[in-house]
Amino acid sequence: MNKLLLSEKTSREFVSQLFMKIGACKEHADQVADHLTLAEMRGQASHGLNRIPFYAQKLQKGGYNIRPEMKILKETAGTALLDGDDALGVVSGTKAMELCIKKAKESGCAAVAVKNANHIGFLAYYTLMAAREGMIGLAICNSGASTAVSGTSKPVLGTDPFSIALPAHRHLPLVLDCATSVVAQGKVAVADREGKPIPGHWAYDEEGNPTTDAGKALAGTMRPFGDYKGSGIAIMISLICCCLTGMPFDMEEENQRRIHDATAGSALADLFIAIDISPYISLDSFTERVDQFIDIVKQNDLLPDTAKIYMPGEKEFDQMDCCRKTGGFEIGTNLYQKLQEISAFYGLEYDFTSWLLKT
Amino acid sequence: MNKLLLSEKTSREFVSQLFMKIGACKEHADQVADHLTLAEMRGQASHGLNRIPFYAQKLQKGGYNIRPEMKILKETAGTALLDGDDALGVVSGTKAMELCIKKAKESGCAAVAVKNANHIGFLAYYTLMAAREGMIGLAICNSGASTAVSGTSKPVLGTDPFSIALPAHRHLPLVLDCATSVVAQGKVAVADREGKPIPGHWAYDEEGNPTTDAGKALAGTMRPFGDYKGSGIAIMISLICCCLTGMPFDMEEENQRRIHDATAGSALADLFIAIDISPYISLDSFTERVDQFIDIVKQNDLLPDTAKIYMPGEKEFDQMDCCRKTGGFEIGTNLYQKLQEISAFYGLEYDFTSWLLKT
Repeated sequence: MNKLLLSEKTSREFVSQLFMKIGACKEHADQVADHLTLAEMRGQASHGLNRIPFYAQKLQKGGYNIRPEMKILKETAGTALLDGDDALGVVSGTKAMELCIKKAKESGCAAVAVKNANHIGFLAYYTLMAAREGMIGLAICNSGASTAVSGTSKPVLGTDPFSIALPAHRHLPLVLDCATSVVAQGKVAVADREGKPIPGHWAYDEEGNPTTDAGKALAGTMRPFGDYKGSGIAIMISLICCCLTGMPFDMEEENQRRIHDATAGSALADLFIAIDISPYISLDSFTERVDQFIDIVKQNDLLPDTAKIYMPGEKEFDQMDCCRKTGGFEIGTNLYQKLQEISAFYGLEYDFTSWLLKT
Repeated sequence: MNKLLLSEKTSREFVSQLFMKIGACKEHADQVADHLTLAEMRGQASHGLNRIPFYAQKLQKGGYNIRPEMKILKETAGTALLDGDDALGVVSGTKAMELCIKKAKESGCAAVAVKNANHIGFLAYYTLMAAREGMIGLAICNSGASTAVSGTSKPVLGTDPFSIALPAHRHLPLVLDCATSVVAQGKVAVADREGKPIPGHWAYDEEGNPTTDAGKALAGTMRPFGDYKGSGIAIMISLICCCLTGMPFDMEEENQRRIHDATAGSALADLFIAIDISPYISLDSFTERVDQFIDIVKQNDLLPDTAKIYMPGEKEFDQMDCCRKTGGFEIGTNLYQKLQEISAFYGLEYDFTSWLLKT
């Protein structure tokens, strides 16, 4: 059987061409291409090219805005409220973090909130932008309700993720990017498709009982990570994003409806924070100490069931290396067909046979 | 047997008088009294009056500085690096958050780091200062190594805590305040004193095996909460605090030595962040939505083993209510004697018999 293998370059070119054909300007199309391609290369396929069918549907039905007017609604030296204007989440997210970095360069520290946002992909993308500029980056966003508050089993919170990144010197930057559920819901979906059980602490069924049945878990509720601590983090993320921007909460009807309605924006909210390092200490001093920390931690003995001590984000960088060595990343045949249909719909002439690797 | 019961007022008066006698100005003595008393009232005795013997020893031997010169070493509109000058941690922490709030009022968002800091007590104290000013407050600090990085069993990280607070309207503010270990090490110490076992996921023994023996756990290492996610949070907290300020890492010899050496400051580091709400949305809009969120979550069905859905910080506010109703908080006889000795040493004439409640 043939394998479907995309190189980083092929993926970027295809995605960018497709989104330009849909109507995006080159800058925005390139941003989407960069984001989705990196997600695949990092091993986060759930945030990769398989998002395109959903994005395309929302764009076609008018829920997403391919030519958004993203206005700064309110602004101070260290803050801004940006109207995402139902842009593709990557586009408003990238603009918001760029603005945040610009402001942090001037006043040292900045926080930019986005309203009328859509799914923004993986958060490490944005916090790494700050790390590349010699800053500490933070990003949080809300999502659709899927996860319980500690002590209950009803979906009240999204998997509302957070990311923190900071630069190193010899080493790659450190970047933490976590859902506040025990695992991302996508992992339950994978287990369900494969007919495999899930660990009993991942999710509840519809009656509120812990379950190892992936199908029942999908109909039920995800558990927050770290019990009341992860639950508390998710509550704070949800409140900060939604209350600063006036967007509906994860469990409110408006959120649920607009995420699934192709004719409406998803009414989500994000917050980006950048803290410049040089106002405190020279960037070299900071990054050399980060290197030393990594070196010290790596010297530790491993637990019996552990193959390697991973620093935050290292697994994803390893995966990128691996993809570059093997020539790219694989995608499934369903997605392959879907992408051909979408390309045909928008009149993109593209030779998909180059993705077929004879094995 | 007699009970030792201190009212909130008695505790504040005693602690303030004692620290003034030791040499603190009234402002600083009142800050320490406020902090330690609130810790007791909130049910966090490990951060309460039992800290006084340790503080007194460090003050007497010259490790702590009762008349600190806390200078702003570097400053921009939204940032500052404060030299804690080995002040009592509460004193430098309070000054840092006050400065952070002042800057956030001007530029919308601010982050203040403190070097040469000492143990700053419970972090909710500082983030609630921001919440009272209509801001979102964040605080993180490093500490002495006690906790493993996920995948190892050696103490590399402190219990490096974080706190986030935000204001509500009808409801009390929400405030999350968590150690990044599964539980605070103090809970293991309590189990050890009482000869009770601990849950197997709290800690490792010296050989790196999970243990239910509290004594072996104290000689060993605490586990991070939420596996690699909590471990990642602790790594980021440790790096941000130490690398921004040039302070030693939790596991470095200088950290270990200076925390325990009474003649030296503890060489710890803190970071405080304040984000003003009004640059994004009116404070009333924000806080009314927070109220609505709390009301929605509270309507959820409880899990079988759950008595009440607690919002972040609610348990501690409940405990304060309880203390106010019962007339105060209890302390142990060991601490009672120790406080009398310290008072005598510094020549404080104080009538301790008023603490004895005849039962």
